[in-house]
Amino acid sequence: MSNTNKPIDLAHSLSLFNDLWSPKRVATLNDYDIKIAKVSDSFVWHSHKDTDELFLVLSGTLTIQFHPGDGGNVVLGPNQLFIVPKGVEHCPRTENGEEVSILLVEPKGVVNTGEVTDAKLTNAVKDI
Amino acid sequence: MSNTNKPIDLAHSLSLFNDLWSPKRVATLNDYDIKIAKVSDSFVWHSHKDTDELFLVLSGTLTIQFHPGDGGNVVLGPNQLFIVPKGVEHCPRTENGEEVSILLVEPKGVVNTGEVTDAKLTNAVKDI
Repeated sequence: MSNTNKPIDLAHSLSLFNDLWSPKRVATLNDYDIKIAKVSDSFVWHSHKDTDELFLVLSGTLTIQFHPGDGGNVVLGPNQLFIVPKGVEHCPRTENGEEVSILLVEPKGVVNTGEVTDAKLTNAVKDI
Repeated sequence: MSNTNKPIDLAHSLSLFNDLWSPKRVATLNDYDIKIAKVSDSFVWHSHKDTDELFLVLSGTLTIQFHPGDGGNVVLGPNQLFIVPKGVEHCPRTENGEEVSILLVEPKGVVNTGEVTDAKLTNAVKDI
């Protein structure tokens, strides 16, 4: 263990960056990453063929869009979470350009855009 | 997927039970459980030999005690998290009988008291 245990303060971690749709790793749990991100407007439709994906909203309102037949869109406010099942296409978005802060839990190595490559949006996770 | 996607509202889920030190599963992420619990006073010293354990405080203040040489106690307030590394003995507690709400992420099947069996405190996870 480290010499001095310190809490990970999500508000502080969020204050350290401003780029959007670019997850930052705040901790690891076995072979999973605990990540935070700031998001605004619409992401890209994508799926993760090998893993579920946990979204927990820390501030603001996030809509996770699904295709018809996949259960309908989910609207998440603070302290609301949703697990996107593996293989299910989804597209997160926010309304009216709101900036929303989220926490994500996924296995290490998962790319935010899944099977899709998007020059603007595909970002490898970075430590913070 | 379910016919109707619904957010998991942690405040609502917390309103559905009052028992202490008895984790409730609100979701699963691959082979991991996403759990919430209400805790008060002191738990039992224990470790989880095969897994890290994520604590995220939702309300109140949680102290996670560690033995000397293991980095010192961690005090977590709302929206602060800590990962207890696998194999490290720890004992969560709250001060002055405060009731604290926490979110836990662990592989399925992890028992809250780890290698220790305590008639009052050992609780299998339940769905909520």
